[in-house]
Amino acid sequence: MSGVYVSFDGVDGAGSTTHTRLLAKWLRSKGLKVFETKEPTTGRIGSLIRAYLREGSPHPAVDALLFAADRVEHSMRIKSMLDEGFIVVSDRSIISSLAYQQAQGLDYSWILEVNKYSLKPHMPIILDIDPEISLARKKEVKEKFENSEFLRAVRDNMLKLARENGWAVVDTSKPLDSAVNEVRRLVAHQFKKFGVIIDERP
Amino acid sequence: MSGVYVSFDGVDGAGSTTHTRLLAKWLRSKGLKVFETKEPTTGRIGSLIRAYLREGSPHPAVDALLFAADRVEHSMRIKSMLDEGFIVVSDRSIISSLAYQQAQGLDYSWILEVNKYSLKPHMPIILDIDPEISLARKKEVKEKFENSEFLRAVRDNMLKLARENGWAVVDTSKPLDSAVNEVRRLVAHQFKKFGVIIDERP
Repeated sequence: MSGVYVSFDGVDGAGSTTHTRLLAKWLRSKGLKVFETKEPTTGRIGSLIRAYLREGSPHPAVDALLFAADRVEHSMRIKSMLDEGFIVVSDRSIISSLAYQQAQGLDYSWILEVNKYSLKPHMPIILDIDPEISLARKKEVKEKFENSEFLRAVRDNMLKLARENGWAVVDTSKPLDSAVNEVRRLVAHQFKKFGVIIDERP
Repeated sequence: MSGVYVSFDGVDGAGSTTHTRLLAKWLRSKGLKVFETKEPTTGRIGSLIRAYLREGSPHPAVDALLFAADRVEHSMRIKSMLDEGFIVVSDRSIISSLAYQQAQGLDYSWILEVNKYSLKPHMPIILDIDPEISLARKKEVKEKFENSEFLRAVRDNMLKLARENGWAVVDTSKPLDSAVNEVRRLVAHQFKKFGVIIDERP
């Protein structure tokens, strides 16, 4: 049986890292084989992307192309894990590129074309939060994307994509426990379509 | 006055590095301001590309996207040098991506689209040689592209592009002096179109 590729995307501070970790842990506790991963990856291209995010890249297209290059490698890894029957849970996916890089002024169709060789998640989950709230939560060093006007544009893009594609949206301004339970219900429900049955009792 | 962007592309061992150096030197001797450069660049993305070329990248699209990312940065640098009136002489350009990455199985139109944010040379010069001859000339460690069947496909792509676009082709299987003189005549002739007059006497 082939696996399922679940992704969490949202504005900075929406909780994709936390939800990836907690969902992966929960799915493992249900006896499933889980590959927990993230974008940018921890590989060489991913490391370069993080350096550019910290220092500021010279042009949004440089970001877009580096993310796409990293994602081709990542997709090959994801593909092989899916083929082995793993559930893949990724902290960010092509959806973050579409939302962030559009907000940086690039065309949606160009970003999509550049990502032609990348996998799209089977089950994208958009984590939605007002950037003012998410930024207030974050204590870390600010990266280039972390200003609220820009993040409002990113949020709008994510919500528009979710609406147009019928993706699940989870409000992460509410308490974590509540959002986590909503994610679990969503996943248990949608996994049935992929033939994966999860016992939802804690 | 804005400068002129000259590039040399050809199969491995066709002489782009040598001709770039010699043309830049000659143009400087004629009193012109010259920016001598190359692709992949010596920057961080360029270094990563060279590592992938040595070790083998996982997918041709990774190469194509990294080259394109590097080229966006490079184009910004070239643009600023042209604006300052420099003659830019580059060892390789977008033309090498088009020829090599097509030979790796990618679509011409996709490679072109991925390179949407890159400058095209004003005066591309294709250095043409039979790969059997060029490979025999090279003594260096072999990179992934250095096998003659693959390079024959690259050569065919370069010649086709040159034919379709009316670019100059210089045969570099002949003695270096002869090829260098042909390049100088070509450059002196075509530079007139850009308002740059070169005294061709040695």
